[in-house]
Amino acid sequence: MNTPTAPASLSAPATIGMPLVQVDTPALILDLDVFEHNLALMNEAVRGDGARPGKRLRPHAKSHKSADIAKAQIAGGAAGVCCQKVSEAEALVLGGVNDILICNEVVGAVKIARLVALAKRARIAVCADSAANVAALNVAALGAGVRLEVLIELDVGAARCGVMPGAPALALAKAVAASPGLRFAGMHAYHGSAQHLRSIAARRAAITEATEKARATRELILAAGIACDTVTGAGTGSFLFERDGGVYTELQPGSYIFMDADYQLNDWEGFPAFGQSLHILTTVMSTPAPDRVVVDAGLKASSIDSGMPRVAGWPGLEYLKASDEHGVISVATGTVAPALGEKLLLVPGHCDPTVNMHDWFVCVRQGVVKALWPVTARGMMW
Amino acid sequence: MNTPTAPASLSAPATIGMPLVQVDTPALILDLDVFEHNLALMNEAVRGDGARPGKRLRPHAKSHKSADIAKAQIAGGAAGVCCQKVSEAEALVLGGVNDILICNEVVGAVKIARLVALAKRARIAVCADSAANVAALNVAALGAGVRLEVLIELDVGAARCGVMPGAPALALAKAVAASPGLRFAGMHAYHGSAQHLRSIAARRAAITEATEKARATRELILAAGIACDTVTGAGTGSFLFERDGGVYTELQPGSYIFMDADYQLNDWEGFPAFGQSLHILTTVMSTPAPDRVVVDAGLKASSIDSGMPRVAGWPGLEYLKASDEHGVISVATGTVAPALGEKLLLVPGHCDPTVNMHDWFVCVRQGVVKALWPVTARGMMW
Repeated sequence: MNTPTAPASLSAPATIGMPLVQVDTPALILDLDVFEHNLALMNEAVRGDGARPGKRLRPHAKSHKSADIAKAQIAGGAAGVCCQKVSEAEALVLGGVNDILICNEVVGAVKIARLVALAKRARIAVCADSAANVAALNVAALGAGVRLEVLIELDVGAARCGVMPGAPALALAKAVAASPGLRFAGMHAYHGSAQHLRSIAARRAAITEATEKARATRELILAAGIACDTVTGAGTGSFLFERDGGVYTELQPGSYIFMDADYQLNDWEGFPAFGQSLHILTTVMSTPAPDRVVVDAGLKASSIDSGMPRVAGWPGLEYLKASDEHGVISVATGTVAPALGEKLLLVPGHCDPTVNMHDWFVCVRQGVVKALWPVTARGMMW
Repeated sequence: MNTPTAPASLSAPATIGMPLVQVDTPALILDLDVFEHNLALMNEAVRGDGARPGKRLRPHAKSHKSADIAKAQIAGGAAGVCCQKVSEAEALVLGGVNDILICNEVVGAVKIARLVALAKRARIAVCADSAANVAALNVAALGAGVRLEVLIELDVGAARCGVMPGAPALALAKAVAASPGLRFAGMHAYHGSAQHLRSIAARRAAITEATEKARATRELILAAGIACDTVTGAGTGSFLFERDGGVYTELQPGSYIFMDADYQLNDWEGFPAFGQSLHILTTVMSTPAPDRVVVDAGLKASSIDSGMPRVAGWPGLEYLKASDEHGVISVATGTVAPALGEKLLLVPGHCDPTVNMHDWFVCVRQGVVKALWPVTARGMMW
C-alpha cells in the first residue's frame, strides 16, 4: 500500500516500577491480582468434573485487543480466542496468537483476500450467514490454496446477523459442506442481547430458548449426514447456561477478565464472583463549586454507550456528564470532595469500546506498575 | 521513558488514486470540496467589512486532531488553533503548528512540566480557573525560564470548569498578573452547553448572557489596571453571536469543518450553510431480513454519545442500534434495501469523539482518494 507517514509513535502514561499515584492521566489501569483471579475463576468454571463434562474455552479478544492477554488466556487453558475483524486477527497473529475464530461475517474482496492469506499463517475460522458470502469465501480459499474453516452464524434471538434456525440454517450448512475450499466446522450461536438482561431468570430463559434452537438445528444438520463439531457462543452474562445446556461445545466470554459498570448492574447469583480489574485513572482538574469537581477523562477516554462510568471507592461522588475531554462529578452534601490534582479510579461504563480508545494497559500489582501491555489491535476495525 | 514496543504500525484503508467505492471499511471519509467550502465560509464570516470589525479566528483542533487540517486553517487566515490537552498540542507542534491555546486547565506536575517545555518550542497559552493552579504554573514557568501566557477560564453558563464572573475572576486575574513567570493574556469564556440548543433564539439568549458576564468581568479587570487583550470563546453553533456582541476578540469554532448529525438538528437561520464533509464509509455485512441490514461500523467506529449516525442519501434506511462492531439498520417498507457488500455513507452522530477512533482521514474529491491525512493527535488524552 502507498502509505504516508504514520502518526507519531505512542508514549505510555507510566513507567515500570512507578507507584500508581504517579501514573499520568487518563490511563487504563489493569489490576493484575484481580485480572488473574478472574482468569482462574473462568478456567475453573469451564473445567469438567465428575458430574459435568468440560467445555472448550475461547475467550473473546474484542474486549481486550491485547496479544499479552490472549496469550495469558491460552496459557491458562483456552483453545484460542475470538476476534470480530480480520485486522484485529492479523494484529493478534503478529503478536503470537495462533488459533482465532472470527465470529463475524467477513464481506468484500479486500477483506476476504486478507482472511485467506491469514489462514496460511495461523488456524483461522470464520462465520457466514449467507450463501453469497459462502460462495465468495470458497472462491478466495480455492484461489489461495487453503481450506478455510467456516461456521454458520445462527440467529438464536439477538436479531442482528445470522441465518434463521431450522431449514435456512441447514441449507447454508449444506452450501458450506459442498464448497471444496471450505470445511464446515459447526455453528456460532451467540445471544448478545441476553447478556445484560438483569435477572438470572431472564437470562436463563433467553439462553434456554437459544440452546433449543441450536439443538434442533444441529440435529437437522447431523441428520443430513454433515458433521457438526463445534457449537460456539456464550458471554460473561450467560455462560453457565450454555455450559450446562448440553449443546454448546465452546464458550466465548470476553468481559469477565475486566468487568464494567453495566455488567455490575446484572444479578450474579450462582456465577463466579468476577472482580473489577479495569479502571480509568483520572485527575481532578477543576474544583469550581462545593458540589462539583471536574476530571480529565471524558468521551475520548471512556465510552458512555452503556451509561456513565462510576467513581470507585468514594461514596457520594457521581459521574454525571461526559463531554469530549471532561467528566463532571457531583459531590453529595456531607461528602468530602477530592482536592485539585487528586486522582480517582473510574469503573468504565462498557469495557470493550473504552479499551479501544487507549493504547496501553498500565498493569498494576499492589499499587505499583508492573508492566505496560499495548492494546495490540486498538483501532483495528477492518 | 522506559517504553516497551509500541503497537503495530498503522495501515491505511485506502491508497491515493483509488475510487471511493474501493476504500476498505469502516473508514473516515473527508470530502475535500465540502471541507474547503466550509473553511471559506468561516473565513468570510469572521473577516471584517465596513460595518463590522474582523475577529481573530482560532479554530478548535480537538475536532480534527490533524496537523494537516490545522495548517490548512492557518493558511486560510486563522491565528493558530485551540487544543484541549498538552499531548494533543505536542503532537500538533511536532506536525508543524506553532501557535496553540490550550483552552483547558493543565493540572499535575508531569503535565505542567511538559507544558512549559512545549512553550519553549512554540507559542503556547493555557487556561486556569484556580489560584492553586496559577501558583503551580508560575513555579514551573520560572523553573523552565519561560514566560507562560495564561488566560483565566470564566464560567459563563456552562457549569463545567471556570471561575465565576465578577470578583472571583478579578482576584484570579490579579494572581496571574502578579506571577512573574506568567503573562495575563485575557479570558476564555466558552459556553459549551449553548451550542446545541436547537432554536436560534435560545442560542442567542444564552450567548447574550455569557457576553454580558464577560463584558462586566473585563471591565473590572481593566479598572484594576490590568490589560485584557483577549476574550476568546464561541463554537460552531453560536459564533455569530460572540462575533457581534462587542466583547469577544477571538472565535474558536471547531465542528464547522465537518458538521455532524447532532449539529444538523440545530436551526441555522442566518448562519453560513456549512456542509457535511465528514462521513463514515461502511459495508453491508449481513442482510438477514427484508426489513434489516447490518453494517460493519459500530461503537468502535462511530461515537453514539449524541445519538446514532444517520444514513446519508438513502431515505428509508435508519441506523437503529450500534454494538461494538455492528450497526443495525432498518429498511422501511417500500424501500429498496442495499445489497450484501454494498457501501453506505454515515453521518457521524458527533464528529469529535468519532474522529478520535480513527487513524486516518481518507480525503476524497469527486469520488477519488486524493490524500491520506493522519489523525495526528489520535488518542492523545494526556
